[in-house]
Amino acid sequence: MGDIGAANRSRPFATIGVMNFAPLKNDCFLRACLGEATDFTPVWLMRQAGRYLPEYCATRAKAGSFLGLAMNVDYATEVTLQPLERFPLDAAILFSDILTVPGAMGLGLSFEAGEGPRFARPLRDEAAINGLAAPDLDQLRYVFDAVASIRRELNGRVPLIGFAGSPWTLACYMVEGGSTADYRQIKSMLYARPDLLHRILSVNADSVAQYLNAQIDAGAQAVMLFDSWGGALADGAFQTFSLAYSARVFAQLKRVGPDGQVVPRIIFTKGGGLWLADMCNLVCDVLGVDWTVNLAAARDLLARNLQQQTAAPGAPVASGAATPTALQGNLDPAVLFASPEVIRSEVRRVLDGFATLSGAPGALRPAHVFNLGHGVNRLTPPDHVACLVDEVHAWSRHLRGA
Amino acid sequence: MGDIGAANRSRPFATIGVMNFAPLKNDCFLRACLGEATDFTPVWLMRQAGRYLPEYCATRAKAGSFLGLAMNVDYATEVTLQPLERFPLDAAILFSDILTVPGAMGLGLSFEAGEGPRFARPLRDEAAINGLAAPDLDQLRYVFDAVASIRRELNGRVPLIGFAGSPWTLACYMVEGGSTADYRQIKSMLYARPDLLHRILSVNADSVAQYLNAQIDAGAQAVMLFDSWGGALADGAFQTFSLAYSARVFAQLKRVGPDGQVVPRIIFTKGGGLWLADMCNLVCDVLGVDWTVNLAAARDLLARNLQQQTAAPGAPVASGAATPTALQGNLDPAVLFASPEVIRSEVRRVLDGFATLSGAPGALRPAHVFNLGHGVNRLTPPDHVACLVDEVHAWSRHLRGA
Repeated sequence: MGDIGAANRSRPFATIGVMNFAPLKNDCFLRACLGEATDFTPVWLMRQAGRYLPEYCATRAKAGSFLGLAMNVDYATEVTLQPLERFPLDAAILFSDILTVPGAMGLGLSFEAGEGPRFARPLRDEAAINGLAAPDLDQLRYVFDAVASIRRELNGRVPLIGFAGSPWTLACYMVEGGSTADYRQIKSMLYARPDLLHRILSVNADSVAQYLNAQIDAGAQAVMLFDSWGGALADGAFQTFSLAYSARVFAQLKRVGPDGQVVPRIIFTKGGGLWLADMCNLVCDVLGVDWTVNLAAARDLLARNLQQQTAAPGAPVASGAATPTALQGNLDPAVLFASPEVIRSEVRRVLDGFATLSGAPGALRPAHVFNLGHGVNRLTPPDHVACLVDEVHAWSRHLRGA
Repeated sequence: MGDIGAANRSRPFATIGVMNFAPLKNDCFLRACLGEATDFTPVWLMRQAGRYLPEYCATRAKAGSFLGLAMNVDYATEVTLQPLERFPLDAAILFSDILTVPGAMGLGLSFEAGEGPRFARPLRDEAAINGLAAPDLDQLRYVFDAVASIRRELNGRVPLIGFAGSPWTLACYMVEGGSTADYRQIKSMLYARPDLLHRILSVNADSVAQYLNAQIDAGAQAVMLFDSWGGALADGAFQTFSLAYSARVFAQLKRVGPDGQVVPRIIFTKGGGLWLADMCNLVCDVLGVDWTVNLAAARDLLARNLQQQTAAPGAPVASGAATPTALQGNLDPAVLFASPEVIRSEVRRVLDGFATLSGAPGALRPAHVFNLGHGVNRLTPPDHVACLVDEVHAWSRHLRGA
């Protein structure tokens, strides 16, 4: 870590580019992340650049492989911007993969067609785990270059979100060697040798923090942690092996980007709806929720938490620290297989669920960033996404009486 | 339905056998299900008869196939009793499969080695759905015969649990044609043609109710609904498409078996922890929870619900109706991959979590049935199961000060 940190300080990634970025025209997403009032509900979609778009498939065919796509700055820039050409989305998200970080740790990452990611050298023995170290960030320069390139191409249209996998989710892949149905290897380690898992998670947390900070340096205007497998953990184990290490990432993150703007933080734990109260203790601005969560109940939970923060100004909230001020979600992606009329009706249901007043008048209210509860399915008709985005903007303006 | 109902009335299944069953020696499980105090916490395990036991594998090899095993009364009896020979479990559960019911509806059920269940004729068009009808229960006679046979062999050692899939979970398999990762077919139907899904769910609910009632007639002393895929639904959709149809099953169930004893009802929605408050409205005795649920919080929720039922004696609870009086769960099955010491420690954590007092002294407290949060993994060492069962009994007696 020491060496990489020194290298990072002596040669910051892509900061030359940052100074020349165009001013932001649409800051609705960033404002909502920080709990500020907006004229409409901003919307972006997890996996908004992906296989449901024919133009994405064309670029991917040119690139030859998924990693060929993700590791090429021009291709990554191209596919990141593709959904924005079609839909008036309020944010772009870097096209990349959460496994770039463990890939750079030397575990032998590959993506087999139709099989998902594979690690040639999964972490299964103590020696390999003790030898694990944060990657040389220079190996991930293609990611930071892509961030800078996308910022330039965006030209201030909407903000750019950077991202990483959560320490726990990365550890799942690193120990299992790929996707898993039963989490047998990682959970065996968790229960039988928690010390080994804590070591992996510590390295992951520090690596992810450096990685996200380098994305911020390169121009990412918000950052998101994908805790895709947090929901697989038992109550108690989630707090110890997922949440604590996400907190360790957030504790190391830059709060302000090179342009002097606050960089909002988002965390999304798939299947983590039962732990939202615990997640309110994260130094994080936005909690992403999947479709199993009742959005009104989650909003009330965040509102109560905000109220407590305000009621106790002496509470130990670090200077510049964040407390959750917004929710992100949570339409079931399967709704996009239905007709435009049904899509519009379900979008309104989500917006209404969040907007319905409860609690005392004048109470603090968190903001809402519209999203799906998971990624866009590859069989989604692009026109249906257009319909979703349009309804979010139209109905949320309507709800505000505009 | 009319014809099958008539046949059922004129020729009840296996009731001759019921009269001769031996009296129950260990009623701890049944008492806990009904919220009564017990000397120790009863324990049984989902999939306690299964591939982790070499004797199961031997019987299955004799049977030739999974369906050959499940459909043969002698084999089904043999494997149901196998775990009881090894471990002092407090209940037996019928060895069968939730897909027997749609199989009997003529959808062409098969189990391919290593692939899981397949339906040759999944429900994909309106004509097939309109033609769907409850199965002739005579086709499922092998199940009821197995129930009676197991009751005879149990000879009163412990009670026998019968079971079925929830209407929603069965519909998932019937529409998808097998297991699914994204629920694309069924959720497309749910959002695009909810009328078709409601028709399937209605047929399923009535079929499952008849099926469970026939199991009760044959000697099942408790019945359980496995809502294995309820957790895949969005908030709102769960209540409409899963919970409402589980309620429809419970509304039709016999409350008392042929021996005059109350037959407790259990429902387990995997991933349903966020909806426990909704499930408290079911006319059901036991709510099963997976390992993501905080057991103390769930217990407090049930206690508050019980308090309300008591505080409002005029509330519309039908005569003989049940309200949840017990929780079932919720150890992560992956704990069984750890050492005996860790297993015992995690078992104590679950028991302590449930036992820790909160709320007013003297408040109504639900009971606890120990179980895993999902089925026993096939790679589990049988000795580790022995260790779990022993610790549940020993520690729960210790907690009661015995």
